[in-house]
Amino acid sequence: MAPPPSIVVSPFVSLIVRILTFVCLLISLIVLTTATGTASNSDYGDIKIKFKDFRAFRYLCAATVIGLVYTLLQTVLTIIHVSTGNRFGGDGLVYIDFYGDKVVSYIVATGAAASFGMTQDLKNMVDIEGLGISHFIRTTDAAASLCLLGFLFVAISSIFSSFALPKRS
Amino acid sequence: MAPPPSIVVSPFVSLIVRILTFVCLLISLIVLTTATGTASNSDYGDIKIKFKDFRAFRYLCAATVIGLVYTLLQTVLTIIHVSTGNRFGGDGLVYIDFYGDKVVSYIVATGAAASFGMTQDLKNMVDIEGLGISHFIRTTDAAASLCLLGFLFVAISSIFSSFALPKRS
Repeated sequence: MAPPPSIVVSPFVSLIVRILTFVCLLISLIVLTTATGTASNSDYGDIKIKFKDFRAFRYLCAATVIGLVYTLLQTVLTIIHVSTGNRFGGDGLVYIDFYGDKVVSYIVATGAAASFGMTQDLKNMVDIEGLGISHFIRTTDAAASLCLLGFLFVAISSIFSSFALPKRS
Repeated sequence: MAPPPSIVVSPFVSLIVRILTFVCLLISLIVLTTATGTASNSDYGDIKIKFKDFRAFRYLCAATVIGLVYTLLQTVLTIIHVSTGNRFGGDGLVYIDFYGDKVVSYIVATGAAASFGMTQDLKNMVDIEGLGISHFIRTTDAAASLCLLGFLFVAISSIFSSFALPKRS
């Protein structure tokens, strides 16, 4: 099987993928941070719950923030590339793109996975309807789903930045 | 910043990383599948629990199995490469390595993350000492940690397979 000819990804396509990543992660963060619920328990009465009460959601929050900051920086660099035609920082920065995309894609993927891992079993173990937190869990699941979608776009960026690595001898 | 000169990774180094991945994932799978606990509850009496009772652990199990099968295949191909000096399948297969390593590393990373996401909050929400499943949770945490270590090695393989992509024009 012959390898396909050299694939050069247009900076405009890269920019669109970065913007889609940013939008998904931003909505994910907004949905997560505004999610609230009230757990009703016969022993303790009503308890207000937020995403901060769960380690998995705190990790999801950190993952989306890291993803957002990184994507914003990359979006600005890509806009400079598209508008001026010159890659800011030259060829040396392709390694930073390559490792950055790799690491951030793992962080975002594990953020979504940790949240899903927690909520899927929470639904089985605890009577969340009885506790009155089923709406809260559905909202956080939506945030994790958006983070997962954001991850897919970071993974695409990561493939692009691998293709952009300089010539091998 | 000038890019570093072309990095050619020895197939022998690739082989060692593949073997380390395989060992970590195999021990993780053994630890996970042999983990058992007995939950004691005043309402239901003693209930035997296994990893299959939790969605997050079932996903971890699937992730390690996928990682093991893929790593075994890659180890065999790398052994052929090291012993004959020729890359089985030629240059065309570098794309399969590249995408394979990428996808498998995400699967293994999310497997570990889903398990940790579940157990970290389980410890907070449920009195696991009182239920008598703290030993079970510690064992599954060990399996997830080994899976995470395996992921680091797959991620290294993924970096190597990105460097092995053919020349760009």
